[in-house]
Amino acid sequence: MRVNLPKNLLAEKMALLERVIPSRSANPLLTYLGLAAEEGALLLFGSNGEVDLEVRLPADLEGEGRYLVPSQPFFQLVRSLPGEAVELALESDLSLSSGRFSTRLALAPTEGYPELLFPDLEEKEGSFSQRAKFLTEELQRALAQVRYAASNEEYRAIFRGVQLEFSERGFRTVASDGYRLALFDLPKSQPFAKKAVVPARSVDELVRVLRSAEGGEVVLALGPGTLGLAMPQEEGVLRMAVRLMEGEFPDYERVIPKDFPLRASLEVEPFREALKRVSVLADKQNHRVDLFLEEERALLSAEGDYGKGQEEVSVSLEGAPMSLAYNARYLLEALAPLSGQAELLFSGPTSPTLVRPLGEGGYQAVVVPLRV
Amino acid sequence: MRVNLPKNLLAEKMALLERVIPSRSANPLLTYLGLAAEEGALLLFGSNGEVDLEVRLPADLEGEGRYLVPSQPFFQLVRSLPGEAVELALESDLSLSSGRFSTRLALAPTEGYPELLFPDLEEKEGSFSQRAKFLTEELQRALAQVRYAASNEEYRAIFRGVQLEFSERGFRTVASDGYRLALFDLPKSQPFAKKAVVPARSVDELVRVLRSAEGGEVVLALGPGTLGLAMPQEEGVLRMAVRLMEGEFPDYERVIPKDFPLRASLEVEPFREALKRVSVLADKQNHRVDLFLEEERALLSAEGDYGKGQEEVSVSLEGAPMSLAYNARYLLEALAPLSGQAELLFSGPTSPTLVRPLGEGGYQAVVVPLRV
Repeated sequence: MRVNLPKNLLAEKMALLERVIPSRSANPLLTYLGLAAEEGALLLFGSNGEVDLEVRLPADLEGEGRYLVPSQPFFQLVRSLPGEAVELALESDLSLSSGRFSTRLALAPTEGYPELLFPDLEEKEGSFSQRAKFLTEELQRALAQVRYAASNEEYRAIFRGVQLEFSERGFRTVASDGYRLALFDLPKSQPFAKKAVVPARSVDELVRVLRSAEGGEVVLALGPGTLGLAMPQEEGVLRMAVRLMEGEFPDYERVIPKDFPLRASLEVEPFREALKRVSVLADKQNHRVDLFLEEERALLSAEGDYGKGQEEVSVSLEGAPMSLAYNARYLLEALAPLSGQAELLFSGPTSPTLVRPLGEGGYQAVVVPLRV
Repeated sequence: MRVNLPKNLLAEKMALLERVIPSRSANPLLTYLGLAAEEGALLLFGSNGEVDLEVRLPADLEGEGRYLVPSQPFFQLVRSLPGEAVELALESDLSLSSGRFSTRLALAPTEGYPELLFPDLEEKEGSFSQRAKFLTEELQRALAQVRYAASNEEYRAIFRGVQLEFSERGFRTVASDGYRLALFDLPKSQPFAKKAVVPARSVDELVRVLRSAEGGEVVLALGPGTLGLAMPQEEGVLRMAVRLMEGEFPDYERVIPKDFPLRASLEVEPFREALKRVSVLADKQNHRVDLFLEEERALLSAEGDYGKGQEEVSVSLEGAPMSLAYNARYLLEALAPLSGQAELLFSGPTSPTLVRPLGEGGYQAVVVPLRV
């Protein structure tokens, strides 16, 4: 198999695979980058066992085949090649040349490399039978905005994932570590009803790939134990598959409060900045910041080993004054996806607070106050 | 003591101290930032025991005093203050306010904090009696360009420093780890003769401070066991003192070769890029890259576990063909300070190679080839 392609195109697509392909693995074959010729296109593929990725590129191609090249020197070299074009010839080894540089790299045998299954861009008979379309940007937002709330703890493993809920009512993403919760609703009826939990680290890779797209649409599809993605690119097609976690979230709806004796609407930016400043003084263990709400103002204060600090922020209040305390980190993370105007809805001084944008927007977060 | 000053000025000057003041230290007082009022100016000072730094600023000031404030929250807060001005009041504690934010920070007692000695900008009676003036930019270059050649090994501790040589003939900086050597000559007669060895890590801090200057002159001065620096700034004065190492370098002049059966002149950039590419294939232990010089070309090649690679670069040669091998990292580091045209002077296939800019320039490096 011989292939000739622009260096910049190869370098750009390769970068998508570079984060997925591990530098070490229990299965050493996974440290290799796959190259294959199929129907006049060049395929680049790789997997870390959790996330599989394939990029299909138009290329000037001769012959067929499927090869595994050592990814580490390949990535390093392609980035820095002197010529504008790269010539690859694959047989018993890879010979690569560009400008006055040439190299021969040893290949790995393809036996033992896992079979990678991806959904097709167009519907076909296959193992990914449940399919849904999204705007790239809205799917990216739905995943990225809730991911922070997933757990890092071994305990209750299901909380280390993000749940995707497909139903007639719409599409929802939700993550929680048991202490706080974030969810994002897309009010767009889905063609099937299903819940699937994706490991948070694989969500990061999905988000990264969705961010690399320039608008357009993307197909999500469910196969056995797998969530697949197919996305047209300016040149070629990108496909991805991530292993799902077993189980589903416990019923989280009941922790979302419904009655709010106090509501505050505020400008996110100045409130967040004040919270950051005051939290510098907070206790290093519990990051406690006190919030006192009264007469159109929020008084933030904290006290720790270094001393104490406070700041006042203007807010618009509906309800009786209230005094609460939060772990500043949790509150800051809940506010992070927001900009412009937001609402804080208080169900009580020791019961959950709801954080959401004022007006439209599918994002909601629940933060439990610290016991005062 | 009360002081009022623009937030941005304070934040900018503070940043210079932020890298010097350690977050942990055997002497916990060193983790504090010093604030003092002296002759109508605000002093910010700090030390890590090896490097002392003081910034003198014009400020709207009342009262006198010398205080130690906890640097970690102070740095964090000042960076993010909401107002344009900062008001500091120091007494039994520090009270800081800016916009609607205010804080009180606990102070540390100043007893037990080391006395910091700096040279003056203008010559005075004092402990820094040997003084020399430099252009900021040339001193920065002389230090920065040789620093890489200093050793990281415990063995032969003196090689962990950079030697500064003041003499009638000029000013020289030199560093070596016993395997390679870099030196920089400023042909500018010095008012005294002395050698002083500065720890490489302190050289990094000197370079960083010199880079923060915008041109102008700087005073270097030697005191007992100390190298001092004084530098006027757009606003105020910066002074620094670094502890010297004991001892001086062994005679390094004899390892610099004088006779060269082969000379190559070349464009640094393409040669360096080719060397980087070929070195990707080099053995991971010795980083060996072979160099064959003949007929106006340099053939670079390497072979390791992944396979082999080669590239040809045009050079201009004077002398008979030669075949050598280098640790690619050493050769790349020797070339790093250079741009444009350079010379490689070969004394033989297993004896030292001299690297230097073609034409003017005080930089020279010596790299010993690998035994083939």
